[in-house]
This record gives sequence, C-alpha cells and structure tokens, in this order.
Amino acid sequence: MRKKKLIAAVLMGLVVAGSGSVFAQESIESLGFSLDVVWLFIGAILVFIMQAGFALVETGLTRAKNATNITMKNVMDFCFGAIVYWALGWGFMYGKDALGGLIGTDQFFFNQMELTQENAEVYRNWFFQVVFAATSATIVSGAMAERTQFKSYLIYTCFISAFIYPISGHWAWSGDGWLAKLGFHDFAGSTVVHSVGGWAALMGAGVLGPRIGKYIRGSDGKISVKAFPGHNIPYAALGVLLLFFGWFGFNGASTLTSLGGGSIWSGINISRVCVTTTLGAAAGAAGALIFSWLWFKKPDASMTLNGVLAGLVAITAPCGVVSPGAAVVIGLIAGVLVVLAVEFIDKVLKVDDPVGAVSVHCVCGIFGTIAVGIWANAPDDGIIGLLHGGGFGQLGIQLIGILAVGAWAVVTSLILFLVIKAIFGLRVSPKEELVGLDLSEHKAEAYAGFQIFSNT
Amino acid sequence: MRKKKLIAAVLMGLVVAGSGSVFAQESIESLGFSLDVVWLFIGAILVFIMQAGFALVETGLTRAKNATNITMKNVMDFCFGAIVYWALGWGFMYGKDALGGLIGTDQFFFNQMELTQENAEVYRNWFFQVVFAATSATIVSGAMAERTQFKSYLIYTCFISAFIYPISGHWAWSGDGWLAKLGFHDFAGSTVVHSVGGWAALMGAGVLGPRIGKYIRGSDGKISVKAFPGHNIPYAALGVLLLFFGWFGFNGASTLTSLGGGSIWSGINISRVCVTTTLGAAAGAAGALIFSWLWFKKPDASMTLNGVLAGLVAITAPCGVVSPGAAVVIGLIAGVLVVLAVEFIDKVLKVDDPVGAVSVHCVCGIFGTIAVGIWANAPDDGIIGLLHGGGFGQLGIQLIGILAVGAWAVVTSLILFLVIKAIFGLRVSPKEELVGLDLSEHKAEAYAGFQIFSNT
Amino acid sequence: MRKKKLIAAVLMGLVVAGSGSVFAQESIESLGFSLDVVWLFIGAILVFIMQAGFALVETGLTRAKNATNITMKNVMDFCFGAIVYWALGWGFMYGKDALGGLIGTDQFFFNQMELTQENAEVYRNWFFQVVFAATSATIVSGAMAERTQFKSYLIYTCFISAFIYPISGHWAWSGDGWLAKLGFHDFAGSTVVHSVGGWAALMGAGVLGPRIGKYIRGSDGKISVKAFPGHNIPYAALGVLLLFFGWFGFNGASTLTSLGGGSIWSGINISRVCVTTTLGAAAGAAGALIFSWLWFKKPDASMTLNGVLAGLVAITAPCGVVSPGAAVVIGLIAGVLVVLAVEFIDKVLKVDDPVGAVSVHCVCGIFGTIAVGIWANAPDDGIIGLLHGGGFGQLGIQLIGILAVGAWAVVTSLILFLVIKAIFGLRVSPKEELVGLDLSEHKAEAYAGFQIFSNT
Repeated sequence: MRKKKLIAAVLMGLVVAGSGSVFAQESIESLGFSLDVVWLFIGAILVFIMQAGFALVETGLTRAKNATNITMKNVMDFCFGAIVYWALGWGFMYGKDALGGLIGTDQFFFNQMELTQENAEVYRNWFFQVVFAATSATIVSGAMAERTQFKSYLIYTCFISAFIYPISGHWAWSGDGWLAKLGFHDFAGSTVVHSVGGWAALMGAGVLGPRIGKYIRGSDGKISVKAFPGHNIPYAALGVLLLFFGWFGFNGASTLTSLGGGSIWSGINISRVCVTTTLGAAAGAAGALIFSWLWFKKPDASMTLNGVLAGLVAITAPCGVVSPGAAVVIGLIAGVLVVLAVEFIDKVLKVDDPVGAVSVHCVCGIFGTIAVGIWANAPDDGIIGLLHGGGFGQLGIQLIGILAVGAWAVVTSLILFLVIKAIFGLRVSPKEELVGLDLSEHKAEAYAGFQIFSNT
Repeated sequence: MRKKKLIAAVLMGLVVAGSGSVFAQESIESLGFSLDVVWLFIGAILVFIMQAGFALVETGLTRAKNATNITMKNVMDFCFGAIVYWALGWGFMYGKDALGGLIGTDQFFFNQMELTQENAEVYRNWFFQVVFAATSATIVSGAMAERTQFKSYLIYTCFISAFIYPISGHWAWSGDGWLAKLGFHDFAGSTVVHSVGGWAALMGAGVLGPRIGKYIRGSDGKISVKAFPGHNIPYAALGVLLLFFGWFGFNGASTLTSLGGGSIWSGINISRVCVTTTLGAAAGAAGALIFSWLWFKKPDASMTLNGVLAGLVAITAPCGVVSPGAAVVIGLIAGVLVVLAVEFIDKVLKVDDPVGAVSVHCVCGIFGTIAVGIWANAPDDGIIGLLHGGGFGQLGIQLIGILAVGAWAVVTSLILFLVIKAIFGLRVSPKEELVGLDLSEHKAEAYAGFQIFSNT
Repeated sequence: MRKKKLIAAVLMGLVVAGSGSVFAQESIESLGFSLDVVWLFIGAILVFIMQAGFALVETGLTRAKNATNITMKNVMDFCFGAIVYWALGWGFMYGKDALGGLIGTDQFFFNQMELTQENAEVYRNWFFQVVFAATSATIVSGAMAERTQFKSYLIYTCFISAFIYPISGHWAWSGDGWLAKLGFHDFAGSTVVHSVGGWAALMGAGVLGPRIGKYIRGSDGKISVKAFPGHNIPYAALGVLLLFFGWFGFNGASTLTSLGGGSIWSGINISRVCVTTTLGAAAGAAGALIFSWLWFKKPDASMTLNGVLAGLVAITAPCGVVSPGAAVVIGLIAGVLVVLAVEFIDKVLKVDDPVGAVSVHCVCGIFGTIAVGIWANAPDDGIIGLLHGGGFGQLGIQLIGILAVGAWAVVTSLILFLVIKAIFGLRVSPKEELVGLDLSEHKAEAYAGFQIFSNT
C-alpha cells in the first residue's frame, strides 16, 4: 500500500514539476512524525522496565519473608496506576488548563478511534507519561515495605497516580502550568517524579512507624538501631542495573523529540543527555562507595547501589543543561549526600525506610533540582545557573518549585495516609508482620522449599 | 562515504533543477526503509527478551529441583528453533504459496549475500518472525515442566518451530494464506502464536500425565489435588515484567512498519496499540487479583501474575482495532477467565499444567481472537465487531480461524507427542522425577550450597 | 518550534521554486542524523545491559559466599570505567592520531556545551563506545572471581578502560589506526573487545593463582582438579539471555549507521548482521550442548550457556561479512571449541578461571577473527576470505591483528597485575577467601537469612 503511494508521488513529482518539493516537504514531516513515535516508544518501554528495577531493588534490600508481597506491590501499582492514569491522571496533568495553571480538566477516559495524527499524539504521549506516573507511585512502596497492608497499599497508590502526581506534574510540565511559566526547569523529573514520590514515602513511613525491632530502647534508656540486612544483594544489583538502563529512556527521551536542533528540547541534545546521565550515575556510585568506605571502613554494597540511584535522581533535572564535567560533580555530591541522608533519617529522624527511598528520591531529587540553578549552562534556552553567570534568578525559581511541589506532596499524601489509616488501617498486625507478609497476606511463601531463618 | 554521496546529490539537485524533487523522493523512501529496519529491530529484540521472561516465569512457578532443566529448555528451544526456522520454518510460513493458501514452498536455508533492499527485507522480516516462532514453542515447556525428558523436549520443539507453527502461521499471516484471504484478523498472534502453543501444551501435558503426587486417590475413593508451590515468586514476577516489556514489541511492531497512516497496519497505529496493550494487561491483573481475592480470600500472587499474561494474550489479537475502553473490558474478562480456566483444568479436567500455560495461552488466546469479532472498530480496514454494528460476520470468521488453527495444532502436536513417546519415550522415570531433573538429567543442582527440602 | 520552521520552509519551497529540492535535501540529512542518534542510542543501551548479563553469569557460576562481591565489581567497573573513559580512554582511542596510527591524543575530558551537530556526534559516539570499553574490562572479573581484593580490582579495571583497551582499539577501529589501514576487519570486536578482555583475564588468573582447594596433589603425587559448582544456574541463564539480547546492539549497531546501502557499514546490512548473530549464537549453544553431551554423557548446563556466549563472541568479528550458513558453521565450531578450551585451561594449563571467561572471550574471540579470513564474502568492501576465492591475504592480516592486539594486551596487563601485586597485593588472605569475599570484604552476606553450606 505504502509503496504504491510513494511511487505515485514520484511520478506526480516528475509531472507537476514545481510542486514536487512541497510533496517532498510533507513527506519529510510525516517521516519525522514516525521517527518520534519510535523514539518515544523507546523512551516509554525503557521507563516501563524500571518497574522491574524497583521491584528487584526493594525485594533484594528487604527480608525473604516479604518478597512476594513487595513484588506484587510493584506489579500492581503499575497495573492499577495505568488504569487510573488513563481514567483521571492524564486529564488532570495534560488536559485543558484551568485555574491559571493549577489543573487540567479534560481528556479523562480518552477513547478516540480515528487514526489521525492528533489522536496518535495523545496515545503516544500518554504511553510515555504513564510510566513516569508509575515510577512516582512505586517509590513509596520501598519506604513502607514489610509492614503495610496490601489492600491499603492499592488504595493509596491509585490516589498518587490519579491525583497527587498529576497535579503537581501539571504545574511543572504542562505548557500552561504556573511553575513552567515561571521558568522552573526540571528536565526529566528530579522534583516532578522523584521528590513527589520521596515526600510521599517519608509521610508514609512516618505515619506507619518503624518495623518491629527496628528501634529498641535499652535498660539504659538509649535507643539502639537495628539493621535488617536485605536478603538478596544480586537482586538489588540487577535492579539497579535495570534502573540505570531504563533511565536512559527516562532522561534521554525527555527531549520529547528526536528531531531538529537549536534547543535542549530537540534531538541534538539526546546524546549529551545520555553522557551526563551516565557520568552522573557513575560518579554517584563512586561518591557513595568512597565515602562509605572511609566512614564505615568497608565498601558497602547497599550504599553503593543507592549511590548509583542517587546520581541518577540528581542528574535527572539538570541532565539537559549541564556539561559532562558538571555531571561528575553533581553525581559525586549526590553519592555522598545519599549516605549522609540514609544515616540521618535512620539514626536521627528515626524514620524506618527499609530501602533508603526517601534519601535517594527526595533528598537527591531536591539536590538535583537545585543543581540546575548552580550548574546550568544553556543560554540559548535561557537557563543559566549561578556558576555560569546567571546569578540567583534560576536558583530562586528552582527553590520555589521544590517548595511548592514538596508542600503539595507532603500535605496531600499525609492526608491520604491518615484517612486510609482511620478507615481501613494502614499497617498489618504485629503477628502478621513477624510471620511475614507473604504468608499473612498472600498465604504463600516466596521461596518454597528453601530453608530460611524466619527471625531475620 | 555516505556524506560524500549526499553532497554529490545536493549538487546534482542544484544542477539538474527539475529532477531534484525526484531525488529527494527517493531519499525519503530510503530513509523510510532505514527507519523500518530500526523499528522491526526494536520489535524483534523485545520479543526475543520474552524468552527470558518465559524462562523466569516457568522457573519461578515450579520447584527448585528442576530449575536448571527449565532454564536450559527455554534457552535451547530458542537456539534450536532459530536454526530450524531458518532452515525450514520460514519457508513454510512465508515462502511462495502452494495449494491455495495452505503452505509456503521456498526460501529454505536462505543465504543471500548481495546487500540489496530486497534481501535486507528478507533478513529483517525473518529476524522479526523467528522470535514469534520461539514464543510459540516455549509456551509448551511450561505445561510439560518437571517430568519431560530433555532429549524428547528438544525433538518436539524443533518440530513445532519448523513445521506446526509455520504452517498455520502461513494460513493467517502470509498474504496468500487462506485464513488471511477470508478476512481472519489476528493482529499480533492470540491465535497464530499463543493458542497454537497453548493447544500443543494441552496435548503434551495430557500425553505426559500429571506429576507424581499431584492427584492422589484417598481411601474414600475421592481424588485430592495437591498444589506444588513455585520456588521463587520474585523470578516469576520479574519474568512477567520482562514479558510485559517485550510484549510492547510483540504487539507494537506488529504494525510491521513505523511509517504512514490511514490504516491499522501503519505507523499511526503504533501508539494506540501500546495503550491498549498496557490497559489490557493492567486490567487482566486487576481482574485476576480481585476475582481470586473474592474466591480464595487472598490476593493470590501466581494467579495475579498469570492475570497480567492473560490480559496480554487476550489483547494481542484485537490490540490494533479496539479502543482503550474496550481493552480494559477485554483485560478484565481475561483476568477472570484465567482463574476459572486454571481451576477447571487443574480440578475438573485433571490435566497437570504446572504454570497455567494452557489457561493463559490457549484459553485467553481464543478469547482474544473472539474479542476482535465483538469489540473491533476499524471501519477503514473493514474490521468491525458485533458491538459496533458489524453483525456476526467478523465473529464468524474469527471462529473459523480459531477452529481451523486449533484443529491443526491439536492433531499435529498429538501425533508428534505420541510418536516421540513411542520411539524415544517422553517422560523421565519416577525415580528421576522425584530426585529432580537437574540432578537426574543434567547431573548438577541449580542452587549448589543452599539447603533445600527435596521432598517439596 | 519545529513545526513553524517546517511550514516556513514549505512556503519558501513554493516561492523559490528551484531551491526547494536543496532545502528538502538538507532536511533529509537532518532526519538522517536524528535517526542515527536514535539508532546508536539503541545500540548503546543494549550493550549497557550486557553489564547486567555479565554480572548474572559470573554470580550464577560462582559460589554464594562471593555473590555480593561479584555483583559489586560488575557495577563498579562500569561506573569507574565510564569516568576514566570520558577522562582519558576516549581520547586515546578516537582522539587525533599520533605516531602513525598508534595512539589518539586529544578530546580528553571533553566538555562541549554548544548544541552543534559536530558536538552531538562526539557525545553520541562516546555513549556507544563507552559500553564496549566496559565490556572489555568486565570480562576480566569472571576469571579472577572469588579471590581478588576489591581495591585492587578497582585499580586495574580503571587501567584497562583508560589505557589498555583504548590503545589497541585505536589501532583497529580509529580510521587512522595502523591495523585499520592494513585492512584488518573486526566488525564488532571479537579481537578489539573480547580477546583483549580475555587475554587480560588469562594474565590475571595466572598471576593470582587458583582458588584454595582447586588443585590438590594426592598422596600418589597426582593432581586432582575440583569443580566448584555455581550457586545459581537460573542467574547464569538469565545472564546469558540478557547478553544475547544486548549483543544485537553490540553487533547490529556496529554498522555505526542505520542509513544507506552499498556497504557492510550501512543500514542495509543491519538485518543480516542480526540474522548471523542469532544463528551464530544458536549454533554455538547447539555445538556445546551436543559435544558436551557426547563427551561427558550429560547435557551440561554451564557448558551450553558458555556455548551461547562462544557463538556470540565468534560471530562478532565476521557477523557483517558472512552468510547465515557460514554463521551456523562458525557457531558450531565455537561451541565445540569452548568446551575443549575450558577443559584444556582447567585440566592441562591448570589456570583457574571460575566462569570460563578465557575460553569464551579469548579463544573464541581469536577464532572469530580468523573466521573473517576464511568465510568472509563481502567483495564490494574488499573483504574476501579463503573459501570465497580471497586467498590467504585477509587471513594473514587477521592473524597480524590477533597477534599484535594479543601481545599488547598480554604485556600491558601482565605488567599491570604484577605492579598491583607488588604495591597493593592482588589476592585476599586464605582466611578471607575461605570465609568468602562478601563477609570479608563487604561485611555483609548476599543472602541474609538463607541456610547456605559455607564449605562449598
């Protein structure tokens, strides 16, 4: 079919001499459209596979008796999240703006059947965006692991994907959003995706309270902090590598097009984004490894793996506007920061976050968003940080965005968790927790036949 | 080299004014060809990684003592399958038609060396098709797990990839196939791939008989059905996520081109296919989770994971011709159906299918093919289902396809298994089965050093 | 933005009739650039995920007490490798040539911020190349597993990625390299990547010595060789499938462009490369399976998995210039060869290579490079092997390349390991080795809570 059309067009070109170039022009445009369909497809599936990465990291860094539960949560938050993001979330995020940049208001339950380019763009963009919504929701499961009711988990994950994430997302990423208009820059979502998930994770872990046995007051009145080692480090490492892999789509395809040049939002910037992403992650690992080695006198595996993620989260906002050298610096700082944050949250705040999700996604998400205001060097796009002569302007805008989105995520997720706690309960019983959620919630072990010490 | 050519062409365009547009036209065509090479490459590698997904699902849902054996089968069915699909299968499926749409007859052992576009298309299309052939073959291994001789497995998998799958595939997917000419619509293979594998799985499991200890007749004459829990739920979940990931290539790239518009078989339809695939799978998980929760009073992990696959298999035929809303409905039904089918096959038919392959691939494959006749809404392509005013015409054609392909798969695979059983034997000895196929067939444990209870 | 530009161009095309075709030409060129950005992105991320494949293969084929250590090494060699390959390696490999094809000399710490096509090409090509550098380095970790100090590992991996790999890479793959100019053909790196890693692995394993208990002299003076079975065959199988998956990028994208035709280095050759890669790997598995079955009377899992890798390594050099039939032959030979090599190195050389890295990457890398001189059939590109009338010319050049690169890798890596051994020590203490590197180096088990027999 296609070939016939093209041959006809060639013949037309020969006959209707002058108009040949116009035809060619139109075809170039349609090819460009096809290429961007492919490009955002690649981006979307890469972000999708990050669900597997999160599932493995969270499973690997927690105990064997909760492994079925955690993997189920990671599968179901995408599945329920996709349905509600189609029904509601997408419309709130990218629907027609209302209230001066606060919320989108149409395209709920979109269901178009005409194969027009306009409809195809909606489908294409939704497919690329739904996986980001799922990422934001799935972050929370790590911090609330090993003690949350499965039923309550499903309820709150729907609210995050349908409502909390899309609305602050509208502010920053919809063309009409008030933060976007202000000049807030978050290339791929350090704040929009990661710190939203991270703040909700902090609230969730706070409302839930720590796992049994985590903080024990001794006879001397001092509280000792127990570490529960993860049950499968290769899972965690494979998960981190899958996340790293998927992040190339997360950041790379956030140019939103593979075409053209002249802007950070064009195809010309894809490869530099990949380089800064690679170096940011690599330096995050290096920073966490070296810092934890000096501090704890051992090259700590879970800290280093979280260092990779810290670098990735931190480079997510600035990846499109900074140089490779700056990416290395940002990554190194993030790697140190995540170690400090894990220790601070665990030992000082005494919030029990089994996988370090708050440190990785909230703390490093905030740092990465600030990094734009410091290291950005994209004068053609009007984004210049402190170190490149941009003054404090961009930095100030970045802080406004961090605070606004943070306040939104904190308030709404806190209300959400408190309401769920009041109505359904948020936490399993102590007996269920000690037995493990696999047996108590799902009536099945994750590792049938293996000898596992149940008190670990 | 390339650049020099382009510059020369530009100069030519300036000199030979009128013919410039024709040159541009040809270059657009060659760019389109390049883009489709990339697009089908992406599709092919995504379907390839589904082999890892199947390996993990089947390994995770069976016992530790057979884990080496199952992973080996999944690796080798692709490897042997690729060789025989090059030697024979491709020719039977896409070679020059004979017998009025029944069988292809050339391109066996293709071996072209000229770098022409025509040859490149053969290579491109074979690479995209070989992974589908492997999928069909690998489905069978799950249903026949934990008791089949490795040698016999290798023999029958070659026959499926070389002969059984390609011939019914020729009927439906070759332009000259009799089912294709009838108007049978199976976008990405609910019937062509999945139900062929599923029927063969049913025949194989039936001929083999159940695993020792699966069905035990009590002193009261009643038969009790024992469940053998899988040994690694995270493997199964990772496998499902890898399958979901790969399925975007399976369905998305079944447009066979990234170019153009005006048809479901064009680039304009890719993104909608991804959306219906996502929602079908998500709703499949939701349907299976909720239904199994209500029925068994627990959110069952293996049922829910099979629900994802059920949704994926069911949406595979209609993904290109239905709306997102219909995809949700189709997925939900598939999710309920797979739970019912697993129980029916296990408890009523008493066919022992360790991973639920027949329920997922055969039952939901048939349902998905029927769904085209009900929910299809692609008037421009002449595919309209019952609910959109198409009457019973398409539905009838779909049923003919289901029955014809089903009969072919049942008869040929049954003969195949019976012949192998008669000549080589199909099943290991009871002693080998109890010890586990890892030690008895491969002389090596899967998990050296781990304490595993051997009687589970 | 883009749309506005295109519309303006269309209007210009109408007005300035004659020049329309030139504009179209430029746009076609920019689309081609965009497509190649996407194509090399795909290639790069596929090679990236091979890190996960290597991590899983090496973890699965070694003992549980070293699993954290091995995964950490595989994560960190990429992370440190990426930083040094940005800082130094890239410049040595692809910088301005000096000394008549011996070494590159600029582009160290590249840090460009202008979004020009020229800069974008540097970023694009670095991103595609860095993952190859990581592959070369990561090969070594397998052969040196279970007894190498983590600190020393990090040092030598930096040297390989910064210096050893890039310099011989410059010889063969930089346009100005002396081997390239000689006509040495290594399409995707059987020699440049795999045998460099393999030779370094051999030197490393030799300098380290065998694991405790590997070779035991009996009272009769004869040495018995102990096999240490891997602790997780499904990991190894998943790793092999991920490597196979990634190899499509490794080989496929080594065309370096998705555009045009008329050469093996053009888009027209991508699909045939995928076919030869598939068949080479498949035949490698078949060869190793059948040969090990005949020899050892069992279908050996780890041999067969290494057979897949052997086929992949061997087809890597010739994949662009041989037919599918030749790929099957090359794969079969590689599959047999890897079994022979594993036995020879283990039993005769008595070098302890826990995962068979030397046999896979060095032996089959050499064989694959020789295969070009035998089976190549690319007359348009001037690469013709012995069997297609090319005489011994190409074969001789291939041997020169193998010897030159091999000598470079052997000498530099031997010096490197001896210097590290003298300054820092290369090996952990016997007590640390017996306890396992997870506890002795990282102070944490890989599988907390699982009962594992520590003396295996």
